[in-house]
Amino acid sequence: MKTYLDCIPCFFKQALFAARVAVDDEARIKAVLDKVGMLVSEIPLNSSPPETGRQVYKTVREVTGVNDPFRALKAKSIHQALALYPSLKHMLAEATDPLEIAVRLAIAGNVIDFGANPDFQLEHDIQEVLHKEPAINHYQGFKEKLARARDILYLGDNAGETVFDRLLIETMDKPVTFVVRENPVINDATMEDALSSGLDEVATLVSSGCDAPGTVLGSCSEQFLARFDRADLIISKGQGNYETLSHEKRPIFFLLKAKCPVIARDLGVNVGDTVIKDALAS
Amino acid sequence: MKTYLDCIPCFFKQALFAARVAVDDEARIKAVLDKVGMLVSEIPLNSSPPETGRQVYKTVREVTGVNDPFRALKAKSIHQALALYPSLKHMLAEATDPLEIAVRLAIAGNVIDFGANPDFQLEHDIQEVLHKEPAINHYQGFKEKLARARDILYLGDNAGETVFDRLLIETMDKPVTFVVRENPVINDATMEDALSSGLDEVATLVSSGCDAPGTVLGSCSEQFLARFDRADLIISKGQGNYETLSHEKRPIFFLLKAKCPVIARDLGVNVGDTVIKDALAS
Repeated sequence: MKTYLDCIPCFFKQALFAARVAVDDEARIKAVLDKVGMLVSEIPLNSSPPETGRQVYKTVREVTGVNDPFRALKAKSIHQALALYPSLKHMLAEATDPLEIAVRLAIAGNVIDFGANPDFQLEHDIQEVLHKEPAINHYQGFKEKLARARDILYLGDNAGETVFDRLLIETMDKPVTFVVRENPVINDATMEDALSSGLDEVATLVSSGCDAPGTVLGSCSEQFLARFDRADLIISKGQGNYETLSHEKRPIFFLLKAKCPVIARDLGVNVGDTVIKDALAS
Repeated sequence: MKTYLDCIPCFFKQALFAARVAVDDEARIKAVLDKVGMLVSEIPLNSSPPETGRQVYKTVREVTGVNDPFRALKAKSIHQALALYPSLKHMLAEATDPLEIAVRLAIAGNVIDFGANPDFQLEHDIQEVLHKEPAINHYQGFKEKLARARDILYLGDNAGETVFDRLLIETMDKPVTFVVRENPVINDATMEDALSSGLDEVATLVSSGCDAPGTVLGSCSEQFLARFDRADLIISKGQGNYETLSHEKRPIFFLLKAKCPVIARDLGVNVGDTVIKDALAS
């Protein structure tokens, strides 16, 4: 997905939010916005928003001197999600089609987002997503492809959401490689977050090699790219991965909640809608 | 009122909206945002938002080559408001306290705002404001000071809202000087808009000499400043005038609808609240 002009005011909103999480010094926060201002003319509209997001959050880190502003918030999100884990596991055990509920739960976990959705209310939002019919619903296709898949690559998104990913991976009961970001960016899951979420017990953990809040293939490691090319099913979680992979003609299923108007418009859905989208479906 | 950090993303949102109203060329619109980006480091947080707004809208004019992007929208707003004029005049004739209703109508007209509130729905919003108790309500003080006032200065805000101002001026039935912006900025009322609204029939029209979307005293004409100092009652319409005059210890009554969270917080009210505020009240 390309960068839309509407993304530009949003980069400033996100930079401001992240800088405020990092420090409490108005002059320093203003200096972050000053530097993001200088970036605007360098934003090519044909690049994806996470490519610029990478620069924006790098600026936040450099100017505030805080390498991982969201570290405490990420730990809290994982803690909250782990507290829900037993009851969600019970819900799956009772379900007629546990896979369908697990997919919906994995999308529900995508509400945990300090970039596009900092005002989320976890338990309330989960219930809403669970009971909502996805606006794009390629679940049947997903189920069929999953049954035949041997090499599943699961592109993680946010910390905390990772616990919901674990539930889906446990329900799929297939060998899965779970992908984290190389370095902290927003509240995206890193290796540390995946480990805290217990994902190492159910999947092979690898880094994409990329520290954008998405999967920018041009910035990923050779090792990851080989893995990406080989996979016969790729589960892509969240907006950032969608933004960077939406044009790829690969066996990708995008699972996400559309939290911003630009992505919703790109997908042809409304803000708040959930999506299970087969990249190869017309 | 000083500029808050939250104003900065909003300057980009407003620049984008105005540039899109002006032209239909994505590269040109992006060039506006690039140039606004360069401005960020020059924004002093101790200046008022309209001082920066002035620069932002100047950038829109310069880069798009369109001097008054909102001209057609302003004419439409005035036309819409004039169509409502007879029924509103009738409402005032029926009112127990016509002055109170006229003040509320003047605030209701403040929903017409292509800077902070481009999605307004005129008739619906008017009804809402009319029936809403102001969150800050110094109406009694206003009524008393108005009874003694001999030299009233009325600081206009937006085109279209001007028709509602005319109703209040007619109801006050006192000599009034109505102030417009020197040059077009957003949909703020200029001399042309005041004339189209029929304000010349009920008030003396003057320009502030300032082309910011507010009344930046340091940029106003000597003639206006003399008038401002002499007035024994100043009616200040809208957010922009509040932002630039909130610290003045003068006999000012601010009439506005709080449409942005920053101004609402500065006033201690909620977004959507209406305000009749005496600048000299504690």
